[in-house]
Amino acid sequence: MAELPVAPFERILKKAGAERVIRAAAEYLAEAIEEIALEIAKEAVELAKHAKRKTVKVEDIKLALKK
Amino acid sequence: MAELPVAPFERILKKAGAERVIRAAAEYLAEAIEEIALEIAKEAVELAKHAKRKTVKVEDIKLALKK
Repeated sequence: MAELPVAPFERILKKAGAERVIRAAAEYLAEAIEEIALEIAKEAVELAKHAKRKTVKVEDIKLALKK
Repeated sequence: MAELPVAPFERILKKAGAERVIRAAAEYLAEAIEEIALEIAKEAVELAKHAKRKTVKVEDIKLALKK
């Protein structure tokens, strides 16, 4: 874990209308989002393998996002 | 948009088992994940306001993630 930087999530929260953001809240969001991203990535990898490919393409991500 | 860097998503896809990843696939994942993050962030901001706070706290993120 801890691939995603926290600062962008502070900006996303501000963009969403937050006046102030506790740093720990942005960190929590970053961690939760990374877990979601990893689940979608696993699904995409499975879909690429299902299509007999070793390379993950945009179409795998798109289909994984539908699930 | 375009707050989140793409490189971490390439690493997340590798971590998920991808042998190779088309750059556009990682970009697509980054954009989709940013949209998801923004939706959760909007929910968290609404929950903070509902609790009469101007500051988004961890508890707002946790509750937003349940929705």
